[in-house]
Amino acid sequence: MDHQIQLADYLFRRLYQAGVRAVHGVPGDYNITALDYIVPAGLEWVGNCNELNAGYAADGYARVNGIGAFTTTFGVGELSAINAVAGAYAEMSPVVHVVGTPSRAFQKQGRRIHHTLCTGEPSDYTIYSEMTVKITTARENLVDEATATAQIDRALRECILQSRPVYIQLPTDMVTALVPSAALATPLDLSPPPHDQDTKRLAANHILRKIYASKQPFLLVDAGTSRYGATDEANDLARRTGFVTCTTPFGKSIINETMANFHGVYGTTGKRVFSSWVDSCDLIIYIGPRVSNINTYGFTTIPRPEVSITFDQNLVTVCGSQTYNVPVKATLQEVLDHLDAAQLPKYTPYPNLPSPQQDLASLTPAQPVDALAHDTFWERMSHFFRPGDIIMTETGTSSTGGREFVLPENTRLINSSIWLSIGFMLPAAQGVCLAQRQGQMQGRTILFEGDGSYQVTAQELSTIIRKRLDLIIFLMNNNGYTIERLIHGRDAEYNEVAPWRYLESPSCFGAPADGYDVQTARVETWGEMHALLADEKFHTGHGLRMVEVMLDTYDAPEALKSLTARNIKAYQQKN
Amino acid sequence: MDHQIQLADYLFRRLYQAGVRAVHGVPGDYNITALDYIVPAGLEWVGNCNELNAGYAADGYARVNGIGAFTTTFGVGELSAINAVAGAYAEMSPVVHVVGTPSRAFQKQGRRIHHTLCTGEPSDYTIYSEMTVKITTARENLVDEATATAQIDRALRECILQSRPVYIQLPTDMVTALVPSAALATPLDLSPPPHDQDTKRLAANHILRKIYASKQPFLLVDAGTSRYGATDEANDLARRTGFVTCTTPFGKSIINETMANFHGVYGTTGKRVFSSWVDSCDLIIYIGPRVSNINTYGFTTIPRPEVSITFDQNLVTVCGSQTYNVPVKATLQEVLDHLDAAQLPKYTPYPNLPSPQQDLASLTPAQPVDALAHDTFWERMSHFFRPGDIIMTETGTSSTGGREFVLPENTRLINSSIWLSIGFMLPAAQGVCLAQRQGQMQGRTILFEGDGSYQVTAQELSTIIRKRLDLIIFLMNNNGYTIERLIHGRDAEYNEVAPWRYLESPSCFGAPADGYDVQTARVETWGEMHALLADEKFHTGHGLRMVEVMLDTYDAPEALKSLTARNIKAYQQKN
Repeated sequence: MDHQIQLADYLFRRLYQAGVRAVHGVPGDYNITALDYIVPAGLEWVGNCNELNAGYAADGYARVNGIGAFTTTFGVGELSAINAVAGAYAEMSPVVHVVGTPSRAFQKQGRRIHHTLCTGEPSDYTIYSEMTVKITTARENLVDEATATAQIDRALRECILQSRPVYIQLPTDMVTALVPSAALATPLDLSPPPHDQDTKRLAANHILRKIYASKQPFLLVDAGTSRYGATDEANDLARRTGFVTCTTPFGKSIINETMANFHGVYGTTGKRVFSSWVDSCDLIIYIGPRVSNINTYGFTTIPRPEVSITFDQNLVTVCGSQTYNVPVKATLQEVLDHLDAAQLPKYTPYPNLPSPQQDLASLTPAQPVDALAHDTFWERMSHFFRPGDIIMTETGTSSTGGREFVLPENTRLINSSIWLSIGFMLPAAQGVCLAQRQGQMQGRTILFEGDGSYQVTAQELSTIIRKRLDLIIFLMNNNGYTIERLIHGRDAEYNEVAPWRYLESPSCFGAPADGYDVQTARVETWGEMHALLADEKFHTGHGLRMVEVMLDTYDAPEALKSLTARNIKAYQQKN
Repeated sequence: MDHQIQLADYLFRRLYQAGVRAVHGVPGDYNITALDYIVPAGLEWVGNCNELNAGYAADGYARVNGIGAFTTTFGVGELSAINAVAGAYAEMSPVVHVVGTPSRAFQKQGRRIHHTLCTGEPSDYTIYSEMTVKITTARENLVDEATATAQIDRALRECILQSRPVYIQLPTDMVTALVPSAALATPLDLSPPPHDQDTKRLAANHILRKIYASKQPFLLVDAGTSRYGATDEANDLARRTGFVTCTTPFGKSIINETMANFHGVYGTTGKRVFSSWVDSCDLIIYIGPRVSNINTYGFTTIPRPEVSITFDQNLVTVCGSQTYNVPVKATLQEVLDHLDAAQLPKYTPYPNLPSPQQDLASLTPAQPVDALAHDTFWERMSHFFRPGDIIMTETGTSSTGGREFVLPENTRLINSSIWLSIGFMLPAAQGVCLAQRQGQMQGRTILFEGDGSYQVTAQELSTIIRKRLDLIIFLMNNNGYTIERLIHGRDAEYNEVAPWRYLESPSCFGAPADGYDVQTARVETWGEMHALLADEKFHTGHGLRMVEVMLDTYDAPEALKSLTARNIKAYQQKN
C-alpha cells in the first residue's frame, strides 16, 4: 500500500469523500495541472464559460447536494468569481473554492508574472487572498507538505459545518507534492462541536414550558433552518404541534406546504397579510433567522423578542432575555423528544388565516384569451409543479412572484433573499440540474427568470446544453429591468435592455441536433400556456425547455409594487 | 447664478470636464437615481449586460479616450467588476468607478440590507471598499457635503495623472445633496506635480553624454511610455537619433512602425530574434518599462542595467547607478531640446536586423487553396490595416500572433501583457468603438479573439449591436482553449469549449433588420479570406462584421509554441 499521494490527488479524493461529485470551473495556467486529478477522483468536470458563472453554478450545486466546489486560476479567475463567493457566504451555501496559484518559489521571489499587478512587492501575492477574509469561513494556503492534508480537512469540515464558502490556494508546484495518504482511510470528521447536555436540557425545558403556557403560538421558519440541518426537526415541530406555521421568503419550501396548518409566506404585503393576528401572538418560535430587508419585508416581520424563542445556529434566545449556547438542531430534537401532545395549547377557534392550498383550489381558472400577467401568473403556475421538483426564481419579479407558489410535498424553492445578485440563477440552475441528475433525484429543475437577468450570464445555457442537462426555463420577458423601473426611472433608457431573440439562444449556444431534446415556445395568453403545459413532451420530456413568457413592460407582482413603493424606494432617500 | 448644485450633477459634469463622454454600467437600486444625471451632463449612457463587462468596456474606452468611467451598485455590482478594476490598475488604464452605496443613515446604523453580508457588523459596509485599496490609486467616499467636490476633483486628477483606476462611493442620500458649484468654473487641475529644473537639466546632460559616447545604441519602448504621455517624445527620439528602435509586446504601436529604424517587437522568440546584437549594445534607452514575464519573454529581454538609461514614471536611472527624480516626459523633452545631431553616433555599418516593413513586402503571397494557419496568418493580415485603425488582440493565440503585425502609421494595437484576463477584449472593443465614434476618429476597430475567450463575455456583442457601433471581429475558432492545450492537457476535456454557432450571435443578440448593417462569414482558406477582404462592403462598411476564422485545434503561432514550451510551462514546475 502506498503511504504517500500527490497533494492534488488527496484534495479531490477528499472532496469526493465530503460528498462532492462535480467540480465546476475554468482552466487557467495556474490551476490547469491540478485539473488532471478531478476525473480520476470520481468527480465530473464542468467547464463553465467564465469564473463568475462557475462560482454561481457551484453554489447552486451546493444548495442541492450539500457541498459544491469550483476551481479558478489566480488573480483574474478568482477575482471574476469573488461576487459568487460573497453571495455563497451571505446566503450560507457550502462551496469550496480551489485557486491555483503560482509556484512557491515565484511567490517567494515576488516575480512579476502575469495575473499579478506586477508591482514587484510582496503584496502582489497576498492581496487576492486578503480580499476573501470576510467572505469565507476558512482560508488555507497549501504551501507546506507537512500540514497540507490537515489544512484541506479543516477547510472541508468548516465548509460543511458552517454552510459557508472556503478558500483553498494550491500553488502549481504543490500539485504533485507527496503527502501522507493515511487520512483518506478515515472519514472526514463532520461531527458537530460538542455542546453541554445540561444546558440543552435546560433550554428544552424552558422552551416546552413556554409552548405549554402559550395561547396563541406561531411558528416562523427561516432559511437558516436548512443550513443548520434542522429541516426535519422544524417540520416535525410544525406537524406535531399543529401550530400556525409560516416561512419567510428565504425559508419558503423548508416546511411541507401541504400541511393544513401551513399558511404561506408571512409578510406584510400581498395576499398573506395577517400581521394583526401575529401581533397578538403570545409565542413566536422563530427558527433559523436570516435577517435582511428583503427577507423581512423591510424589517416589518421580525418577531418581537419579548414573545419569541429564536433558534440561531448555536444560540437559543428565549423571550429576548435568557440565552442558551446550544445548537439549533440538537435543541429542537430535545424539545421533540419530550413534547407532550396533551399539554399543547389549542386555538379557540383556529384562526381564520389564508391557506395557500385552499386558495389555490378555489382560484378562478384563467380564460384562454387572458393575457399572461403577474397578478394571475404565479399562483396558477403552482398547478404545474410535482413532488421532487426544484423551482428556482431569479431576483426581481420572479423571486417576488414565486412567493405565491403553492408547493407540493417534497419540492424545493431556491431564491435569493440576502445577496440578490442578478444573473445568479441561470448558472445556479446548471449546478442544480447536475446535482439532481448525479443524485438520481426524481423531479425537474424549473427556472423562472427575467430578460435582464438572463443577459447577465446567458452563456451558461451553453454549459447546460453541453452537459445535456434537463431544465425548464420560463423566461419572463418584460422588456427591460422592470424591478428597477418600479424603483426609479420608469421609462429611463438605463432600464432598457437590448431586444434579444431569446429563443435563438439554444441554437446559437450549440444545441446539438441529435439525442438532446430542445423545445422552445413563446406564450402570451393562458390558452397558449395551458396548451404547452398539457403537452406531454413538454412537461415530462428530458432536455431543454425554454419558454418566453411575454409580459407588459410595467407589469409586476402586486407585492413587489407595494414593497417597492413602501420600502425599497425609501432607501433612495435620507433615512 | 446658482451657487449650489446636486452632488451627482457635479460628479458627472466634472467627469465631462475631465474628458469623459460616456458612462458605462449596470443599474442597481443603490446607483439608479444617480443615473438621471448622466445624460444631462452631456454624457452618453451605455448599459452593459453585466458589471465585469462594463468595467472592461470602460477600460477599453479609457485606453483610447484618455479617461473612462463606469458605475455599478454596491456589493454585487462592484464585486462582479473587481477583476476589471484590478486589470485597469495593472495595465494602467485611467478608469473612474462610481459605486452607488446605501444611504449614510443605513450605513451608520449597520442595517442588514440586501447586497451586504447581513452580519449586522460595521464591516458589512466597509469590506468592499477595503478590497480596492491595492487596485486603485485613489478612493473617495462622498459622505460629507463640505468635502465631496474636492474629493471628486482629487480622484479625477489622480486617475489621469497616474493613469490608474479610482473608486468613488456615492451614497443614495448624497445624490441630491447640495454642494458648491463654484469649482466647475475652474478647469480640473491636471498639471503634473512640479519637478526640479536643475535635476532635470543634470539628467538630460548625463543622458546626452551617454548618447554621444555610445557606439551601438538601442531604443526600447514599453507601454509605460504612452501611460506617461511620452509617446510623441519617444517617437521624436527614435526619428531624430535614427537609433535601432524596438518596442516590447505591450509597447507595440507606440512607435511609428513605418520608420526605417524600427525593427519590430524585441524578443527572444519568433522571427525577431536579434538578442545577440542587443547583448553587444553599449547603450540601451529603455522608456516606460512595464515588466511582466509575458512582456519580457520570460524576463529575457530586460536590458542590462549597467548599459541602460531607464525612464520610469518619475525616475530616470542611468547605468544602474545614478538616479534622478524627474518625470519621463519632461526629461525626454529636455533631451530633445538639446540634442545635437552632429554628435550622434553612427552605426558602421547599420546592423543587419529584421525589418518588419521589408519582411512584409517580401512575403510570399498565400495561395487561394492554402488553409488559414497561424504561421501564415498574422503578418499577412497586416495588408488589411489602414491608418487610423485600432487593432485589438485578445490574450492567447491572438495577442501572440498580433506581435507579427506590421502596422501602418497612426494605428493603435491594444493587447494585454500583464493582466491577461481572457474575455477582456470584446467588451473593451465596445468601449473602443464608442470612443472612436464619439471622437470622430478616422479608422476602424478590428478585434481578433478566440472562441474560448468569446464565450467568456459574448453577450457584450449585444451592446455593440444596440449602440449601432462599427466593429470588425475575426473570431479565431480553434475549437477550445488552444493556449491552455499548449501549456497542459493537449486533449483534455477541460480544454474543450461548447461548440457554439458563433455566427448566429448577432441575430440572437438582437441585430436589427433596419439600418444597422451586419455581415457574417466563415473562412477556411486564403482564397476565401482574400475575397472577403477585397469586398468593399466588408472593409469600408459600417456596422458589424463578424468573421469566423477556422483553424486547426492545435495550431498556434510559432512564437507562442516556443514561449509556452520554454517559459509558461516552467511555471508549473518547481522554480
